[in-house]
Amino acid sequence: MDRSTGAALLQRSRTIGLGNTGTVTAGTQEHESVAVPAAPVLQAAELDRLRTAVSAALTEFLDRQRATLAAMDPSLAPVVDEVCALAEGGKRLRPAFAYWGWRGARDLAAAQDEPAVLRAVAALEFVHASALVHDDVMDGAQTRRGRPATHIGFAARHSGSDLDGDGKLFGVGAAILVGDLALVWSDELLRRSGISAAALTRARSVWDTMRTEVTAGQYLDLLRAAGGLPGPDGAMKVARYKSAGYTVQRPLHLGAAIAGAAPEVTEAYTAIGLPLGEAFQLRDDVLGVFGDPDVTGKSADDDLREGKQTLLISLAEESADASGRRLLDDLLGNAEAGAQEFDALRDLLESTGARARVEERITERTALARSAIAAAPLAEDARAALDALAVAATTRTA
Amino acid sequence: MDRSTGAALLQRSRTIGLGNTGTVTAGTQEHESVAVPAAPVLQAAELDRLRTAVSAALTEFLDRQRATLAAMDPSLAPVVDEVCALAEGGKRLRPAFAYWGWRGARDLAAAQDEPAVLRAVAALEFVHASALVHDDVMDGAQTRRGRPATHIGFAARHSGSDLDGDGKLFGVGAAILVGDLALVWSDELLRRSGISAAALTRARSVWDTMRTEVTAGQYLDLLRAAGGLPGPDGAMKVARYKSAGYTVQRPLHLGAAIAGAAPEVTEAYTAIGLPLGEAFQLRDDVLGVFGDPDVTGKSADDDLREGKQTLLISLAEESADASGRRLLDDLLGNAEAGAQEFDALRDLLESTGARARVEERITERTALARSAIAAAPLAEDARAALDALAVAATTRTA
Repeated sequence: MDRSTGAALLQRSRTIGLGNTGTVTAGTQEHESVAVPAAPVLQAAELDRLRTAVSAALTEFLDRQRATLAAMDPSLAPVVDEVCALAEGGKRLRPAFAYWGWRGARDLAAAQDEPAVLRAVAALEFVHASALVHDDVMDGAQTRRGRPATHIGFAARHSGSDLDGDGKLFGVGAAILVGDLALVWSDELLRRSGISAAALTRARSVWDTMRTEVTAGQYLDLLRAAGGLPGPDGAMKVARYKSAGYTVQRPLHLGAAIAGAAPEVTEAYTAIGLPLGEAFQLRDDVLGVFGDPDVTGKSADDDLREGKQTLLISLAEESADASGRRLLDDLLGNAEAGAQEFDALRDLLESTGARARVEERITERTALARSAIAAAPLAEDARAALDALAVAATTRTA
Repeated sequence: MDRSTGAALLQRSRTIGLGNTGTVTAGTQEHESVAVPAAPVLQAAELDRLRTAVSAALTEFLDRQRATLAAMDPSLAPVVDEVCALAEGGKRLRPAFAYWGWRGARDLAAAQDEPAVLRAVAALEFVHASALVHDDVMDGAQTRRGRPATHIGFAARHSGSDLDGDGKLFGVGAAILVGDLALVWSDELLRRSGISAAALTRARSVWDTMRTEVTAGQYLDLLRAAGGLPGPDGAMKVARYKSAGYTVQRPLHLGAAIAGAAPEVTEAYTAIGLPLGEAFQLRDDVLGVFGDPDVTGKSADDDLREGKQTLLISLAEESADASGRRLLDDLLGNAEAGAQEFDALRDLLESTGARARVEERITERTALARSAIAAAPLAEDARAALDALAVAATTRTA
């Protein structure tokens, strides 16, 4: 799944990069005439290099932690293995936004150490891993990226060994701690990245904001699942804090902070990040229900079984007649419901026009973000790369 | 409860401070003749000032976060309230060790901003709050410091409002996120403390080690509760990483790092911290079973009902006859067991000599730590304060 996404990202970047060569205009022509024709090839290579560098940074860091934990007790190995598996599975989307956020704003005169920046942005993968693991516990999710969710995996480990007591509780406890470690390690990787002390100070301010937002957003999600924050507005507020902000806007801001960017760059990143983050999350919601399990790595029934209160569901609730609403009440979040019942729910999401309205919104928000990218005061290669990422993030299939 | 502990700390510090005036010897007499007679009064005032400063730092920080979260959504207020309540309840033992670790090692020639140091060491209370909340979820604890454990409190909030779904799951989810926020905020408070960039860099290295240790230690505890890491050795390994290290040794190291202390100071802190942390945790284990609920703020049956696998229990298992072992097997961790059955368990812990052996070990480890304090290359007032803290931490009743 991961590789296919990587391939999709690369493919997309070539397409978009080429598309952009057609828009070269006068003004900064000398700069663009060098950068733009090279962009398609450059970007594909750059995106590939980014993924490789992020993976290498995570592996190097985890090897060190593996040694630290082994010195404490050998029985800690499965904990590191789990963080490794989680870190391996990421799409590297957040590091990519942060890296290009930096590239777009960096001062070429001031030598900034690119390998250090790549390590710093890799730390976002640990923030993400932590959020996923704790979220899966809260949602009671069974699978994640084609493998058992962390709490399920550790529960299975419990039953497969000589351990006593309730395996499910053991799984939940272990998942809480795996998520905690990933969170703690996100900080440590950022700190050890090697970016300058000044860059680190600027970066940590964004970092702290981002982590408070995503955690508070997870609480809002919990509240919404229990009927608090109702309606489409509630869905969008949860999406904004729980996912959209820390997927696009804050990674872009992180890159800008590392670069020491001017305020107008940070503002441009907000104008890009808010609509693009929203479009990303809406694509996620659609994939959660209509995605191909072989590509997404999870059953298309999971979100429906967990009763995820997405905008898609809210819009269907609004447009459904009495019988449609009964269907939603009976089946959404019903652990006992079966495949054909979930198919009936999917049909309802189509027939009420909810899916089409979400797709429209994705298209509209993506277009907004792409306009903001085109207008942003950035280096041309960064604009092309961000545009490619915007399309990839919102048209992805996994 | 908290106030009584504070009073005990002050009282103890007076006693110990006075005791130390008798040990003044030649050598650095000029220094001591000034510092030591003043110590009893100074220390009581200092410890009081420390508690006040830590509380003020936490309150100021949380007020800021309250505003941030309120701007996101008003329904986040209970989350900040819970972190506040947790932060209010702390004994300030970890900040006290860190502060005196700094005082003992600071270079008086280099101006270090004491209010900034006090804010930095206050951040330890958030690390502790995070660990407690997640631990209580894993242990299924009902109460903490005389109020409902976080997951219990949020479950009650769920039933007391219009929310749907399983209140218990809501409580667990909320507690996971409250613990995550406390962890994230521990970092932010340290960063915003105002200590110099160089001090922060040194401090964060200890900080990261400490947080990895405590989280890994919690996993070892989970494993031990399920029968992994058996026997007294397993109990002591869990105690070391899960509690002892981050209560004494790492806070002392944190203070040393902020001060930029010489390696021999850090080594002295290890020699103090390892035995003292162990004695602290053993006192905790004894209080968990034999403490006065009015003073500890939790039922003396909780640890037995949760089946906590402390050294106390391990030693009883080793020394019990077949009937005693049956009693332990039947009653320890038995949620159905009643008051008289837990009294029978307490009798067994006495009659097997387990309690006496733990008390001996506390005495021995405390003596070791106090010798190390007496021999440490520290300012005299810091030695007196650390000695007072050592006695208070190991003879406390709450």
